Amino acid sequence: MTLDCPDQVGLLAKITGFVAEQQGNFVEVNQYTDTINNWFLARFAFEVPEGVTLETVRTAFAPIAVSINASWSIRDSSKPLRTVLLVSKEDHCLADLIWRWRSKEMNIEVPLVISNHDALRATVEKEGLPFLHIPIPADEAGKETAFRQVSDAICDVSGELTVLCRYMQILPGWFCEEHHNRVINIHHSLLPAFAGADPYRRAYDRGVKLIGATCHYATPELDAGPIIHQEMIPIEHFHTPAEMRRLGRDCERLALARGVRLHVDDRVVVHGSRAIVFGD
Amino acid sequence: MTLDCPDQVGLLAKITGFVAEQQGNFVEVNQYTDTINNWFLARFAFEVPEGVTLETVRTAFAPIAVSINASWSIRDSSKPLRTVLLVSKEDHCLADLIWRWRSKEMNIEVPLVISNHDALRATVEKEGLPFLHIPIPADEAGKETAFRQVSDAICDVSGELTVLCRYMQILPGWFCEEHHNRVINIHHSLLPAFAGADPYRRAYDRGVKLIGATCHYATPELDAGPIIHQEMIPIEHFHTPAEMRRLGRDCERLALARGVRLHVDDRVVVHGSRAIVFGD
Amino acid sequence: MTLDCPDQVGLLAKITGFVAEQQGNFVEVNQYTDTINNWFLARFAFEVPEGVTLETVRTAFAPIAVSINASWSIRDSSKPLRTVLLVSKEDHCLADLIWRWRSKEMNIEVPLVISNHDALRATVEKEGLPFLHIPIPADEAGKETAFRQVSDAICDVSGELTVLCRYMQILPGWFCEEHHNRVINIHHSLLPAFAGADPYRRAYDRGVKLIGATCHYATPELDAGPIIHQEMIPIEHFHTPAEMRRLGRDCERLALARGVRLHVDDRVVVHGSRAIVFGD
Amino acid sequence: MTLDCPDQVGLLAKITGFVAEQQGNFVEVNQYTDTINNWFLARFAFEVPEGVTLETVRTAFAPIAVSINASWSIRDSSKPLRTVLLVSKEDHCLADLIWRWRSKEMNIEVPLVISNHDALRATVEKEGLPFLHIPIPADEAGKETAFRQVSDAICDVSGELTVLCRYMQILPGWFCEEHHNRVINIHHSLLPAFAGADPYRRAYDRGVKLIGATCHYATPELDAGPIIHQEMIPIEHFHTPAEMRRLGRDCERLALARGVRLHVDDRVVVHGSRAIVFGD
Repeated sequence: MTLDCPDQVGLLAKITGFVAEQQGNFVEVNQYTDTINNWFLARFAFEVPEGVTLETVRTAFAPIAVSINASWSIRDSSKPLRTVLLVSKEDHCLADLIWRWRSKEMNIEVPLVISNHDALRATVEKEGLPFLHIPIPADEAGKETAFRQVSDAICDVSGELTVLCRYMQILPGWFCEEHHNRVINIHHSLLPAFAGADPYRRAYDRGVKLIGATCHYATPELDAGPIIHQEMIPIEHFHTPAEMRRLGRDCERLALARGVRLHVDDRVVVHGSRAIVFGD
Repeated sequence: MTLDCPDQVGLLAKITGFVAEQQGNFVEVNQYTDTINNWFLARFAFEVPEGVTLETVRTAFAPIAVSINASWSIRDSSKPLRTVLLVSKEDHCLADLIWRWRSKEMNIEVPLVISNHDALRATVEKEGLPFLHIPIPADEAGKETAFRQVSDAICDVSGELTVLCRYMQILPGWFCEEHHNRVINIHHSLLPAFAGADPYRRAYDRGVKLIGATCHYATPELDAGPIIHQEMIPIEHFHTPAEMRRLGRDCERLALARGVRLHVDDRVVVHGSRAIVFGD
Repeated sequence: MTLDCPDQVGLLAKITGFVAEQQGNFVEVNQYTDTINNWFLARFAFEVPEGVTLETVRTAFAPIAVSINASWSIRDSSKPLRTVLLVSKEDHCLADLIWRWRSKEMNIEVPLVISNHDALRATVEKEGLPFLHIPIPADEAGKETAFRQVSDAICDVSGELTVLCRYMQILPGWFCEEHHNRVINIHHSLLPAFAGADPYRRAYDRGVKLIGATCHYATPELDAGPIIHQEMIPIEHFHTPAEMRRLGRDCERLALARGVRLHVDDRVVVHGSRAIVFGD
Repeated sequence: MTLDCPDQVGLLAKITGFVAEQQGNFVEVNQYTDTINNWFLARFAFEVPEGVTLETVRTAFAPIAVSINASWSIRDSSKPLRTVLLVSKEDHCLADLIWRWRSKEMNIEVPLVISNHDALRATVEKEGLPFLHIPIPADEAGKETAFRQVSDAICDVSGELTVLCRYMQILPGWFCEEHHNRVINIHHSLLPAFAGADPYRRAYDRGVKLIGATCHYATPELDAGPIIHQEMIPIEHFHTPAEMRRLGRDCERLALARGVRLHVDDRVVVHGSRAIVFGD
């Protein structure tokens, strides 16, 4: 269960008391009070005895949630999350996530891979995954129609999460809103530095000594969504933009995999522009 | 309050319920269940209303603690911890801790600095701190007497914590036992690698590519106590042992400062050979 | 060209003068003098005009090398290195290296993959790579014969480098000697800590706060060969050995890939027990 | 000797040949060719026999420098660099540099400490260093006069380097130009992210997962000068801006100390907006 609500005295006792009543046994408890905004956020992982269903717990908790004015959700952590992957031509993030799915490191199903190019069809189909080629035209109207197709395709396979694995297209605002906090992107810089195009080239020109990658939720404003995870690597003056691209790939796939995993395990609660991450 | 006891269903509800009864408001809750040994460990930081004393809370909690078979302690986090510093000739760790004490970054008092050399007297007295020179003879009997003096001096100033700031002497077993989990040491390697003498020289000979420092509780077995914190730094083939010593100093003082801070803030619970660290 | 020899005044002038005479243009120069052992080690990357062959340069340099008593080698950096991969059942390092080969990130050819199990045959053959199953019996004589087969298979495909991608077998001493400095292993700890079996379990028991992986040359003494590269990751008390295994996989594949790349690009010169690494 | 010039074939042979002629013995050679701008940059550390003076070497090298169109300088590395420290009210960077000076870790002299506040006078004078209080008025004309005083004071003590140890004032453009590449600043963010005021607060609001500090040369454009070194530390959602300030201090003093050391050891060659750093 993840939950957030206005802070007040006794919240934790109330919720843990509830779980105890349901004969639940805590596996992990994470709690954070944002003292600046007086907000309580928490994650409770617990096991219930056989016979107690998700529905029972939900029904029993609903009145408590109302009484404390909480946003909340409960999920069965044994169920894999249906995750659609979007990709362009570069396959390092895609290959990495597919490996983590195949090896069961990550608790996801991949009902569909969508690309604006046909280049990676063989790579994807070799893994037994369905591949859908939806080209994105340059004109606004064409782009609109294409993204409508992408969104419909995700819904058709009941996608619960969409991951942009170096998908080199800017999503329309409505798309981000329809899939609010359910689209994860990887950007190849330490945001907010070098948002937008060609970050490695700009990192080279600026002469920074650290580069990295940022995993974040996609929002209508480009590269400005809540940050889930960041990875960095030190570089030296002799690293050209091409070499940064090579080194950066290792950051990108790691930052994306860790961010997606945190989301999949319900360890992320978004509060305003910040992602509260109860790490593992 | 820090606490550890055998795990059972309902522990968290019981304790948070107790705190709610005392009108306590949680500032931070950290809980960990060691599922391998079925052990519950936790730290609760809470504020109580004016008028409620530490003594009241202790008395009220005692029967609960007995009922769950818990080791526990409660401290008033506003009270600085009385910390005695032991040092030999190198002052980088000492100077760092003194700076953190003086700037109030760390909630400690320093009633005494003890050294087996007289070299740092001026450095210490300049800061307005008492300096005690207790030489450690080479022979066993002399050593015994000297460490008895060190131990007595710590007790005389009501020292609650002793920090070895690169104190280049092996403590007698009885000393570690008398001050059990109240002596923190810094060792200049990533333990368990290079325990014992001259770790940088041995790191050079072995050709490792990472060096570091380990902050741990002193136990009768040398460099084998529970680890609180470790810091590392990458090195290259051209770093001589002398250059490792220089780079390592930055790791040592940082690892020590962070480890001591974690202890001072009651964030460390030792369980067997492992230190459970509820990080900040 | 990589080169090492006793140090003396004027070595660098002599060698760079030679390259200038051959109309060579330096792309990169790396030089290191081990002042403890008075030893000169260097790597020179240079381009020669069309028409100048590797053979011409070698012949011209031979008398100079004799005059300075140097060990040396020159390679055409455009030629991929023939690299044989050995694996057991876990495929994370294997999959990673295959991806780096396929994407041309690493300048290698993979003429053969050998395993002591048949489990990864499909994974390997799907990539169009030959897979050879050579079981390793438990008895000494059987083991000896099997490793003779492994060694012969490597020679049959003219393997220039052998990479142990989590190959869970101890190589015989004669094997390491026959393939001296041409067998790279990945060990799942920060060597010299936790050499040998089950390092994550032992890291858990010791309560370390940093784990990692070490890429090194295989030598007859287990996990004691020259270290090429190490990667680390911080962990916390709540990470079980199983979770360390998961986190460690990311370290292992990265440390192995970086170490292999350094070798493939002739950036490693072994001197005694230490690997001099002219990093990129 | 540090040197940069347009790239051409044979440069390295020419320079190393020159040093050999002077009976110089190389201690360390670092060379980098910026292939994008076709520029050669290098650092040569060498010892000359007794009797050979800096002046002799300079005179002998001058015609070569002209022939290859080089910017260059030669310094006697045994001579400490005269370094003036500027500080406001926070003393963590100042205390750290003073410690490194006193312990001879850094090859500097400190002829003067200047502050716009009187708060740290005792801290500085306790170390036996001269302290000069030059308040900076809010009005432009007053500011101008005050910075003229600062600049004169630096010249009066023959300052060769000025280090801003958290000096919370924006330097006038003319000041940066008069002391071009001789003023080092520490900024408490991973530039170019969060240039300007209150970076920790903005890092908190943006929800980044990594913070850090940047050591760079001061130029007329604020926080935009060539970057010498950067340090970072991972943070979590529960770190408030105040806690980032605490954690950041460790980054700041380390990044500043390492950057200053690199400059002091003549390991930095600025080329356009980038600092080429021949690391140690």
